[in-house]
Amino acid sequence: MRILLTNDDGIHAPGLLALKNELSRTAEVDVVAPMAEQSAVGHSITLHRPLRVIEIERDGELVGYGVNGAPADCVKLALAELLDERPDVVVSGINLGANVGVNVLYSGTVAAAIEGAMFGIPSLAVSIEIEDRPQFDPAARIVGKLIRKMPLAELGDHVILNVNVPAIPPSRIKGVKVTRQSVRAPEEAFDRRTDPRGRYYYWITADFDGLAEEEGTDVNALRDGYVSITPLHFDMTRHTLLQKLGNWDLGGGLA
Amino acid sequence: MRILLTNDDGIHAPGLLALKNELSRTAEVDVVAPMAEQSAVGHSITLHRPLRVIEIERDGELVGYGVNGAPADCVKLALAELLDERPDVVVSGINLGANVGVNVLYSGTVAAAIEGAMFGIPSLAVSIEIEDRPQFDPAARIVGKLIRKMPLAELGDHVILNVNVPAIPPSRIKGVKVTRQSVRAPEEAFDRRTDPRGRYYYWITADFDGLAEEEGTDVNALRDGYVSITPLHFDMTRHTLLQKLGNWDLGGGLA
Repeated sequence: MRILLTNDDGIHAPGLLALKNELSRTAEVDVVAPMAEQSAVGHSITLHRPLRVIEIERDGELVGYGVNGAPADCVKLALAELLDERPDVVVSGINLGANVGVNVLYSGTVAAAIEGAMFGIPSLAVSIEIEDRPQFDPAARIVGKLIRKMPLAELGDHVILNVNVPAIPPSRIKGVKVTRQSVRAPEEAFDRRTDPRGRYYYWITADFDGLAEEEGTDVNALRDGYVSITPLHFDMTRHTLLQKLGNWDLGGGLA
Repeated sequence: MRILLTNDDGIHAPGLLALKNELSRTAEVDVVAPMAEQSAVGHSITLHRPLRVIEIERDGELVGYGVNGAPADCVKLALAELLDERPDVVVSGINLGANVGVNVLYSGTVAAAIEGAMFGIPSLAVSIEIEDRPQFDPAARIVGKLIRKMPLAELGDHVILNVNVPAIPPSRIKGVKVTRQSVRAPEEAFDRRTDPRGRYYYWITADFDGLAEEEGTDVNALRDGYVSITPLHFDMTRHTLLQKLGNWDLGGGLA
């Protein structure tokens, strides 16, 4: 098996290195990842400046290619230019911080996996809840086991598996839950402060605590100590509304 | 009616100003938009630096608030801090460049509308195909007519209408088509060049020409000279796969 590994925390992030070590046990792993942290870049791509690629070493060994762009850029560039062979799987992570609920939309980690799926390659986004000392190695082992166990070819085209690991010791993880993405918005507020020159500035804050009660969701599974796996796709059409909108008869007198 | 207007081309963009003029005829319009162009930022939000807000004037009149962030930041900040009253509709655009097919995922314009929908407000993303001299004023009139015609409250929660206007004179527009998002990936390639110091750099290029044949899609309607309206949502779950994945029995022997 040949795996393209990327992330949004950057090519030097411990979550990526843990996953590279684990996956390399049973697969050929190519790394193409951003040079620097890209968290919350969403599905951005780089159109207004050129992309650069640098080979990155660590302890005298090649880690992979670093790109001065977003996670989605890395996957595009890997598939179109950098890799000699098409990967069987694209894996993005391990991201430091869960990507559940509406955060899926802001996530560069998920965006990279979506890019893989766009090109017809089964793709996984992998994230771990934030804690003081995240245990990337056990999380990487869980992901390695899942990838070896899952008949990914059965998923069909255009599917992303969004995997989230809870912030508890691996021995206390209760199992795996297949979940849907929570669509509830968190409680958001802005922390308004005054700079030394007397001008306001704002920090975003968000509180997801109220969302975990909804059964069957990614947020709920994680809160309850399960690894959450959500199948995602990138058809954002609300198909159930097509007919209603068609009945609105909007065509007349437009010009 | 009270409308929050934003975009991703920046608060000085002609597409936003055309829409502000048109919508102001029949509604209260508040503008909160990025200070600078943000194209292809996708659904990014600003976590690692604080946001600043500045009142922007043009010809002695207040345009609105400029924010040093992404389109999604603008909507969050508007709803949480800047607006005295909750808007009835969020409108994002007019973007210079169509947002159809998988480009919906890269679009800051669409991301801003999704933010509105997250908070339960009917939201529209509006884009016009790129041409030499885009006709924003006629496109704005079309959008104004659509907004006044559409019973937006009937859409229910969490719906975005993604409106795209073709690059032809308004009198030649054939009407409105309700469409689904094309999910086919464009032909992509990287233009590799060498800089004066002999190092490579890459520009992304994408060719959507092959995608327009698929009936019922946004790309197809636009190619055929129709205004395309696609209802979108932000539940990215592939619901049809939940059962299959549940049958995979992934829980055993994880730790």
